[in-house]
Amino acid sequence: MTDEDDFAEDRYGVPPMLQSQARLDRVLVRVQDLTAEKAGQLLWVRARIHTSRAKGKQCFLVLRQQQFNVQALVAVGDRASKQMVKFAANITKESIVDVEGVVRKVEQKIESCTQQDVELHIERIFVVSQAEPRLPLQLEDAVRPEGEGDEEGRATVNQDTRLDNRVIDLRTTTSQAIFRLQSGVCQLFRDTLTSKGFVEIQTPKIISAASEGGANVFTVSYFKTSAYLAQSPQLYKQMCICADFDKVFCVGPVFRAEDSNTHRHLTEFVGLDIEMTFNYHYHEVVESIADTMVQIFKGLRDRYEFQTEIQTVNKQYPSEPFKFLEPTLRLEYWEAVAMLRQAGVEMGDEDDLSTPNEKLLGRLVKEKYDTDFYVLDKYPLAVRPFYTMPDPSNPKYSNSYDMFMRGEEILSGAQRVHDAELLTERALHHNIDLEKIKAYIDSFRFGAPPHAGGGIGLERVTMLYLGLHNVRQTSMFPRDPKRLTP
Amino acid sequence: MTDEDDFAEDRYGVPPMLQSQARLDRVLVRVQDLTAEKAGQLLWVRARIHTSRAKGKQCFLVLRQQQFNVQALVAVGDRASKQMVKFAANITKESIVDVEGVVRKVEQKIESCTQQDVELHIERIFVVSQAEPRLPLQLEDAVRPEGEGDEEGRATVNQDTRLDNRVIDLRTTTSQAIFRLQSGVCQLFRDTLTSKGFVEIQTPKIISAASEGGANVFTVSYFKTSAYLAQSPQLYKQMCICADFDKVFCVGPVFRAEDSNTHRHLTEFVGLDIEMTFNYHYHEVVESIADTMVQIFKGLRDRYEFQTEIQTVNKQYPSEPFKFLEPTLRLEYWEAVAMLRQAGVEMGDEDDLSTPNEKLLGRLVKEKYDTDFYVLDKYPLAVRPFYTMPDPSNPKYSNSYDMFMRGEEILSGAQRVHDAELLTERALHHNIDLEKIKAYIDSFRFGAPPHAGGGIGLERVTMLYLGLHNVRQTSMFPRDPKRLTP
Repeated sequence: MTDEDDFAEDRYGVPPMLQSQARLDRVLVRVQDLTAEKAGQLLWVRARIHTSRAKGKQCFLVLRQQQFNVQALVAVGDRASKQMVKFAANITKESIVDVEGVVRKVEQKIESCTQQDVELHIERIFVVSQAEPRLPLQLEDAVRPEGEGDEEGRATVNQDTRLDNRVIDLRTTTSQAIFRLQSGVCQLFRDTLTSKGFVEIQTPKIISAASEGGANVFTVSYFKTSAYLAQSPQLYKQMCICADFDKVFCVGPVFRAEDSNTHRHLTEFVGLDIEMTFNYHYHEVVESIADTMVQIFKGLRDRYEFQTEIQTVNKQYPSEPFKFLEPTLRLEYWEAVAMLRQAGVEMGDEDDLSTPNEKLLGRLVKEKYDTDFYVLDKYPLAVRPFYTMPDPSNPKYSNSYDMFMRGEEILSGAQRVHDAELLTERALHHNIDLEKIKAYIDSFRFGAPPHAGGGIGLERVTMLYLGLHNVRQTSMFPRDPKRLTP
Repeated sequence: MTDEDDFAEDRYGVPPMLQSQARLDRVLVRVQDLTAEKAGQLLWVRARIHTSRAKGKQCFLVLRQQQFNVQALVAVGDRASKQMVKFAANITKESIVDVEGVVRKVEQKIESCTQQDVELHIERIFVVSQAEPRLPLQLEDAVRPEGEGDEEGRATVNQDTRLDNRVIDLRTTTSQAIFRLQSGVCQLFRDTLTSKGFVEIQTPKIISAASEGGANVFTVSYFKTSAYLAQSPQLYKQMCICADFDKVFCVGPVFRAEDSNTHRHLTEFVGLDIEMTFNYHYHEVVESIADTMVQIFKGLRDRYEFQTEIQTVNKQYPSEPFKFLEPTLRLEYWEAVAMLRQAGVEMGDEDDLSTPNEKLLGRLVKEKYDTDFYVLDKYPLAVRPFYTMPDPSNPKYSNSYDMFMRGEEILSGAQRVHDAELLTERALHHNIDLEKIKAYIDSFRFGAPPHAGGGIGLERVTMLYLGLHNVRQTSMFPRDPKRLTP
């Protein structure tokens, strides 16, 4: 058979690279919009080849667009030649194609696709971008629940392979859902605070002195001198409070040069930070932050698009729905210590909580109060940073708090010392070089309102809300002591 | 006179530092809410002492809360003793006080205050936080228009003094207005894109290889190796496009180790970044980004709170209202070159625009089209980064564009090369070490959709919208080659 024999030769092929040669006014229909109502219509779709299976004179394709997919068919006939079917069958998986086809209702639901009621009968097919034939990982493997892989001897994909090939791993329905939900967490955080009268601020990440004492800080070459990467916006959000901004928040990267290779530590993560003045008691702030978290949880629970995403993630990583109370449960540190002791843990009144004890406490609190979210208040002064306000009645304790989701810390906060003299005294007590934090301390010398705040780890919130087990699953391009790429 | 003689001794003083000793249920009224309707009411206010003037048995105070202020009075009488008036008169400026007083209508408007119809007759006054007596700068001086200072021999405050004492400089009405407006720019940017179906992403700032060739990049010590600070989220937002996120944006710091000491360069600034796929022509993206800018301009123009802020800034820094067209004007590079030549500038077809020529072009465009915002399209390929898509019909040009506000560039963008082979070729042409950008190039090997985007400098948008003249005015804590503090 020669080329002349192919009546369909204009109906398929690999056109030149799309370089904006012309502005076609062709409408591209979204895969998610391919429903029974469109039956009989001839339309164009751009999508990836998700799977491809040739069968005699036909080729079945599954076309994918983000989390949505539809079955399509090229069959030898009026509109497609043998050559065209062969061409379609040879297009590599993950390639992007433009297809024109007729939407047809199907008699039996297509269980394996999101668009179950229709299939697309392809009349033209052009390759927009060709994928290399060998994929470093298979999307089907990457969404397989771990247990299922083990039991049936099917492949799953380990974390390093995923992260090494993140561009492909992020295409899975699970990844798409995780990061669309995370985008929602940021949006809910900001919308809630904006409606409470907060102002968004931008704080510098390159700083001249390590604000929190000098440990665990990354050094940057800065022209002829050196500088540091901010471990938090702490200093700057407090300076904004001293500068009369009253209620501020910021969303941005924070950097920790900690050599911790755990499921919940990253060297760079996204901080959702809050700082606000209060009138007479820092609990005004605790309640405002806790309510902000509750508004996030409610937004995720009640908006349709997030529900879909939660269900998608649950298919691969099953978890219990996230529970919270309104108003939020607030326990004091001594109560937590008492609960842990009753459960057999030996610890002193002023000891910090270890990670296993935090998790145990989370289980005990869940049993007793039926909540996955609570505030632990009044930490021992000794385990908190120097700028933490001491408790007015018991100098062993402090006006500080953590917030927990499913037994893991997601926020650390406190009333801050707003008096330059006490701040100096506390810094000296912590052996901090006063010269290095002079600009910080001086901020409090010209009238500083009482204030409190906290910093939330975005990746932890997403991880724990979804019941995932590694913070690398909720960081698009995670950074840890061993990983700097991609 | 001894203490016993003071009948008012419980009505004033310096209480112990506010450490959340008790949760008073005292309502604090906002200064902006002190209006004639509240006349006759006894109420509490927390505010700063803005100015203070003792006059015989009276002391006049101006109490300030952010941009709002009100006159207050302590006078010897039933409720205030001589000692109390003296105490009030001695409170240092910028101290924060709690006062209880009766709101009284005034007969003549108080022109110097925002609350012009009332004054507060103080019956109790307590210091919450005392300011040191010597302020490094005076707020009145810091808001004085530059011309006025010169003419009348009154003080103004130079930029370094402002920035060295930023916590006080940020308290001025002008600074409050600038940064509240900037918070609005971010919000309008995100709300517009969210409503267009964009997903917010978070990209890493610590990267293993200098993505854009290696110049002007800060080096970070990273455990036993070294890394770089991202000069833009370019690589990562494109990887998200290859990972099917379709339309993404991010807001975050970008770092440039450029030794430029100009009015518009910072070594760290906030990037508002956009990347999106398109169907057939990158102008789809240009129009979407230009419309996003227009939505920001309209939001700033039409929302009441932003109008107030623009007027406040204009009092110190007068400027013409910002003009824009709908749809946005788009000129091609050759047209700009022709306009400049007609105005007497000598330049070649493929020369880049110098800063003075950009500004001149801005004036010519304003004269001809009456707009402060326009798109300049089709830049010469030679002056753009290696990942820029060449023009399909003329290899000297490219599918790239800048956007301008009041004659200065605020956005640079392009259709990107989405083909790994062409990208390799272009990188080699730019003498870029392929090994260092391997992960980037590999992202395009498994099917990559045509896409385009751009990066906007937040501080420049705020500066140029308000007609300010230095980007340090719109960065809370600016970083340049000579400034790393506060």
